[in-house]
Amino acid sequence: MSGRQRGLFLTFEGVEGAGKTSNLQHAKSLIEATGKDVVISREPGGTEVGERIREVLLNPDLPAMHSDTELLLMFAARAEHYQHKILPALEAGQWVLCDRFTDASFAYQGGGRQIDQSRIRELEAWVLGDFRVDQTYLFDLPVEIGLSRAKARSAADRIEQEQVEFFERIRLCYLQRAEHEPDRFTVVDASQSLDNVQAQLSRAVETLLESVG
Amino acid sequence: MSGRQRGLFLTFEGVEGAGKTSNLQHAKSLIEATGKDVVISREPGGTEVGERIREVLLNPDLPAMHSDTELLLMFAARAEHYQHKILPALEAGQWVLCDRFTDASFAYQGGGRQIDQSRIRELEAWVLGDFRVDQTYLFDLPVEIGLSRAKARSAADRIEQEQVEFFERIRLCYLQRAEHEPDRFTVVDASQSLDNVQAQLSRAVETLLESVG
Repeated sequence: MSGRQRGLFLTFEGVEGAGKTSNLQHAKSLIEATGKDVVISREPGGTEVGERIREVLLNPDLPAMHSDTELLLMFAARAEHYQHKILPALEAGQWVLCDRFTDASFAYQGGGRQIDQSRIRELEAWVLGDFRVDQTYLFDLPVEIGLSRAKARSAADRIEQEQVEFFERIRLCYLQRAEHEPDRFTVVDASQSLDNVQAQLSRAVETLLESVG
Repeated sequence: MSGRQRGLFLTFEGVEGAGKTSNLQHAKSLIEATGKDVVISREPGGTEVGERIREVLLNPDLPAMHSDTELLLMFAARAEHYQHKILPALEAGQWVLCDRFTDASFAYQGGGRQIDQSRIRELEAWVLGDFRVDQTYLFDLPVEIGLSRAKARSAADRIEQEQVEFFERIRLCYLQRAEHEPDRFTVVDASQSLDNVQAQLSRAVETLLESVG
């Protein structure tokens, strides 16, 4: 395989405590084992400017920001990430594995904060044009289980302090997006043990690796 | 006059060193002398969240951000400012005097960074809908004079470090917008002495105050 062949862009989505981060590392190992160069990133963030924006977004000491502000900050960090990190890496033949991307804006700001999906699509087109994610792994589990796992791990950030119904709307939005784009999404049952979840993910990533040769 | 009558939204625009800030205070005094309640603000910033965004925008230690990122951050701060400060103040009958607003995005990110004006209009519509500025005072002066005044005052921030041609494009864009909307804009010749500039501004503000009664 030539290093000049464009890499693939894979995203890992799901509510808090779904195990995205450790599973992302697992997928990285599987893909690297085939000789590919893999870059790991996350949103909001992924660049120095983006991480500064993330600090503003998640700071629990700031007053509640308007939902429009939150969405624009997410897309500001995404523009930086896309233009200065994701695109250059893909064009250099690297695979990019990202903890959250635009699906999270639809789920959190659309489903959670109830911003019109059409308004989110406008910003998506403004920032990304026709660029789209190649494959998305959605780690799905009941909200209560995810939140109790996340709470056991660390103090809640500003967005994690929301109520259970907020996360129920997020989960529903993610599942609707997966249903609408079955070729892009793999839904992983993240309520299972980590071994089981990794096995589900392994099958999906191996199928992808076989398909690209 | 009833306190319930909607206030007016006045903006003060111009390149660095044009004297916007001291003239804004002068206009505030003139308007307050008629018994109106005046709120002073600025962009980017004007709210606690907005000031945090301003820090990211103007930080000279961060790597150069993509022009899309810069514009989205400007509009993120603007969304917060508009929704949580400007609109509530105007609806409470206060007049809001603001150091820079959307014209600055067209001038700096459109003229300066050469982002398509149509892309800026898309974000303007997304954030502000049909809301528009009532009156704009454009403090215009040759770029070299403005920059030498700004330099004498303080160290350059990230945007002020740009080259002279960048500020020439900004000035031109401001003047074109003023020509296109003569009813909204008053162009003040800011190359004159502060007394002279204040006299020009006083005439414009007094005319406005007479027109609203």
